[in-house]
Amino acid sequence: MSSSDRIASDALRAKITTGEEAAALIPSGATIGMSGFTGSGYPKVVPRALAHRIEAEHAAGNPFKVKVWTGASTGPELDGALAKADGIEFRFPYNSDPIVREKVNRGEMDYFDMHLSQVAPMVWEGFLGPLDTAVIEVAGIREDGSLIPSSSVGNNKTWIDCARQIILEVNSWQSPHLEGMHDIYYGTALPPNRVPIPLIRADDRIGEPYLRCDPDKVVAVVKTEAPDRNAPFAPPDQTARAIAGHLMEFFRHEVARGRLPQSLLPLQSGVGNIANAVLAGLVDGPFENLSAFTEVLQDGMLDLISSGRLRVASATAFSLSPDAAAQLNADMARYRDKIILRPQEMSNHPELIRRLGCLAMNGMIEADIFGNVNSTHIMGSRIQNGIGGSGDFARNAYVSIFLTPSIAKNGAISAIVPQASHVDHISQDVQVIVTEQGLADLRGLSPKQRAKVIIENCAHPEYRPMLQDYFERAKKGAYGLQSPSLPGEALSWHQRFMDTGTMHLG
Amino acid sequence: MSSSDRIASDALRAKITTGEEAAALIPSGATIGMSGFTGSGYPKVVPRALAHRIEAEHAAGNPFKVKVWTGASTGPELDGALAKADGIEFRFPYNSDPIVREKVNRGEMDYFDMHLSQVAPMVWEGFLGPLDTAVIEVAGIREDGSLIPSSSVGNNKTWIDCARQIILEVNSWQSPHLEGMHDIYYGTALPPNRVPIPLIRADDRIGEPYLRCDPDKVVAVVKTEAPDRNAPFAPPDQTARAIAGHLMEFFRHEVARGRLPQSLLPLQSGVGNIANAVLAGLVDGPFENLSAFTEVLQDGMLDLISSGRLRVASATAFSLSPDAAAQLNADMARYRDKIILRPQEMSNHPELIRRLGCLAMNGMIEADIFGNVNSTHIMGSRIQNGIGGSGDFARNAYVSIFLTPSIAKNGAISAIVPQASHVDHISQDVQVIVTEQGLADLRGLSPKQRAKVIIENCAHPEYRPMLQDYFERAKKGAYGLQSPSLPGEALSWHQRFMDTGTMHLG
Ligand SMILES: CC(C)(COP(=O)(O)OP(=O)(O)OC[C@H]1O[C@@H](n2cnc3c(N)ncnc32)[C@H](O)[C@@H]1OP(=O)(O)O)[C@@H](O)C(=O)NCCC(=O)NCCS
Ligand SMILES: CC(C)(COP(=O)(O)OP(=O)(O)OC[C@H]1O[C@@H](n2cnc3c(N)ncnc32)[C@H](O)[C@@H]1OP(=O)(O)O)[C@@H](O)C(=O)NCCC(=O)NCCS
Repeated sequence: MSSSDRIASDALRAKITTGEEAAALIPSGATIGMSGFTGSGYPKVVPRALAHRIEAEHAAGNPFKVKVWTGASTGPELDGALAKADGIEFRFPYNSDPIVREKVNRGEMDYFDMHLSQVAPMVWEGFLGPLDTAVIEVAGIREDGSLIPSSSVGNNKTWIDCARQIILEVNSWQSPHLEGMHDIYYGTALPPNRVPIPLIRADDRIGEPYLRCDPDKVVAVVKTEAPDRNAPFAPPDQTARAIAGHLMEFFRHEVARGRLPQSLLPLQSGVGNIANAVLAGLVDGPFENLSAFTEVLQDGMLDLISSGRLRVASATAFSLSPDAAAQLNADMARYRDKIILRPQEMSNHPELIRRLGCLAMNGMIEADIFGNVNSTHIMGSRIQNGIGGSGDFARNAYVSIFLTPSIAKNGAISAIVPQASHVDHISQDVQVIVTEQGLADLRGLSPKQRAKVIIENCAHPEYRPMLQDYFERAKKGAYGLQSPSLPGEALSWHQRFMDTGTMHLG
Repeated sequence: MSSSDRIASDALRAKITTGEEAAALIPSGATIGMSGFTGSGYPKVVPRALAHRIEAEHAAGNPFKVKVWTGASTGPELDGALAKADGIEFRFPYNSDPIVREKVNRGEMDYFDMHLSQVAPMVWEGFLGPLDTAVIEVAGIREDGSLIPSSSVGNNKTWIDCARQIILEVNSWQSPHLEGMHDIYYGTALPPNRVPIPLIRADDRIGEPYLRCDPDKVVAVVKTEAPDRNAPFAPPDQTARAIAGHLMEFFRHEVARGRLPQSLLPLQSGVGNIANAVLAGLVDGPFENLSAFTEVLQDGMLDLISSGRLRVASATAFSLSPDAAAQLNADMARYRDKIILRPQEMSNHPELIRRLGCLAMNGMIEADIFGNVNSTHIMGSRIQNGIGGSGDFARNAYVSIFLTPSIAKNGAISAIVPQASHVDHISQDVQVIVTEQGLADLRGLSPKQRAKVIIENCAHPEYRPMLQDYFERAKKGAYGLQSPSLPGEALSWHQRFMDTGTMHLG
């Protein structure tokens, strides 16, 4: 099926144009809502054309910058190209592009990472200003002008509803069998008119398979045929397998104690290599008839579906390695009945996560001895990616689990520190911490009890005595002994790393 | 109406006994679920009798400690008496008793503060171990054994449902007109069986006015006649009035911009003096037909009802000064139709707070320049009260607002610091900060943009240059410039206060 066959609306077929002409419709200073979520479903042509235009304007001495809103991270053709052109003034709510990251951390770009479930409502509420242009990748346009979403939904519904003008990219690389996989819920509202969201199982469909779209707002339609570009996952190494092993043991234990059903509860699995490795662990585990209510579907989730272990997976996007993406695309019809893609407002909705009782498994940068977790800021100041949906899931999960190797940078960094250099997840939102060293079950423990378990079970042996020493001295010298800390020393490990390249004492 | 008239069940009347005999049914090591929420509706006799018993056992050389679970804070007859007797081994989820606070901060007692909405589900989930005994104050017992709740609901439903045995205190000081004011929802379940909670307005009643109770589990009924003992509020001083003034201005502005309806949205007002002062500001403000969906009803809420401004208030407890409590009690029939008391699982439920779009107004200890908020730990280690419901509301609110004077301890402490010494509310959950100096509207701002506004609008002039200087240097020396910080210096203000008694430079 060619791109043209995918545009069944005459009115919209009449608006077919080039990426350059579409990009010309976006003025400097515009706020653009782009599709795209963790490397899938982002527009591939218009952002690059816009980047070229920006470069040309800059070369001519004219300032040109735009504000870019997305679902989450996108691909090099969007974030990379625009950042390289110095074309982004403000970016939210999530990024993992290395060029954007570098610019943000050099202070050349304003970036705000947000709870992903809150982006759509905040835009609706009018708190973030008006949206000028939506640039949305779709898998097709139907005769009535409604849209077949592509490999991510993200904030597309909101961008289409709110934007003054809409540019569509119809990507014929996307499988036509994506049609019917999506569930777009149109029951949201602003308070005081919000009502319960009628979803009680991860499998429930509560909306429509298509995005509604006012054809009069569409100013350009661009045909593309280009793959989603995700990063490959690292194959699970011994560390990742050890982390997965501890977690499987925990799940087995909880089932044995009657605190979890044999089919567990809907799984949420975060971004990153470790989370993906845990999914591999589940393929070999004793649990059957699993379900997932999660944000992204990684390679591991597809493996779980293929293995027959995972009954259904609900998410807002795929986040696949290039190989897995190609394979999924070839095999989409087989997966379609087991996958539901929703707007991120739904995939990450606190109401739904709490109701379903998700088991949340997320990666992290570091945790402190009390179990406060830093997911975003290296050394407290340098953003890695962003908080993403981790806060939506961690606070509302049945059990909130964080995973990390106990050391980073070949041991120069301990992932367990006296005090987190930045906090994304407070101790109340962290029930379980797992490293390759072991698992800390923190439920019902006071801060001092938590510290003991975290140091003993999770810290690397090379750092354990230093942590124990700090904790013992804090218990003597702290201002109060609820969460004993020494402010003059609490962040010294990070300062030492910045000064000497290692957290180890000289 | 005497206490006996309040016990209409013959079966339970037969179990009337003394506080001493009831306390004798509680062995050392027991886990006790007590009623009580912010100084109201806690049992007044059995805990004290238990404290006497513990003292006697200790005098005889026998160890005796119990684990105490409550709704939130209670009164001196409960937390104070048991702590004084050295009888509490573990305490959660919230405390404001000065004796408990002192013991916790001396490291003599394990305490864990939790999101108040999560206590009931976590107990149901079995994560916190079995509950031995419930000790519940009620306003009366009906013929069928069901219970008329008293001045707080808290976790009473859960304690009654989960405990092995139940001790009831029937307090005839509580107004008989409390009957009918409560709404006990019996639709909760464990996943995978949770369903939407059918509440769409603060006024909705979705449950029953009484607590179900298995009479066979009741092992003792004790008659009492004793007032709730809350602390008085400080009358709003100039600082509090200035904070309230800035906030009224903000609300007016949001209404004018069409981002809030003229009747605002359901108000949540936290504990503490400043929050109470804001309510006084609303009495004189231009807003009518207000509603509240909140955790506690302070003096200011009653004033708002009396003034005719507040149409309806939903909460889990009263948190009144002794004067206001006496006045309410005398006038209960007049207030009854405008007040609904619910289990804290409902008053604080993320699903409901998000749906209703609450305007959350909470006090805090300190905020850092990026807007991370510390509500609990003085100097990062010494617990003041606990996180309470502030996390339930801040994360799910329409607008989450934090209030504090810009300085504490006569200026020796700045409430705006380079880095929060402990984090309860991450920057994503803090949209507005107000001090007497001004208001910082942080919506849609990047961390560096937030820092500028917070320092300029909220910091005290005596600390503003020091903060500016730190921020400028951080922008040069930080590891990354997303949230510029200097780990070696970030907590030095706290250390200086601990060393010298002031955050000012010598
Ligand atoms: C935290 C997170 C970055 C971990 O991802 P990951 O792929 O498992 O992490 P990696 O081990 O590859 O680490 C990423 C980088 O951080 C570095 N790092 C890891 N831990 C570190 C620490 N404690 N201190 C300093 N740097 C650290 C790694 O060395 C690596 O650096 P490099 O790129 O220079 O090699 C990732 O999970 C994330 O972005 N989380 C936040 C968003 C989220 O949770 N979304 C899911 C919600 S649905
Ligand atoms: C944060 C909180 C303690 C503020 O309450 P408040 O009554 O307005 O606070 P106060 O100004 O009386 O301060 C309480 C104490 O903390 C001290 N304090 C305040 N700010 C401080 C700071 N930045 N550094 C050190 N101490 C500080 C005060 O000096 C006072 O000490 P004192 O008892 O020795 O006099 C209170 O709001 C709270 O407990 N919040 C958490 C729970 C919550 O928000 N619940 C509501 C959710 S529904």
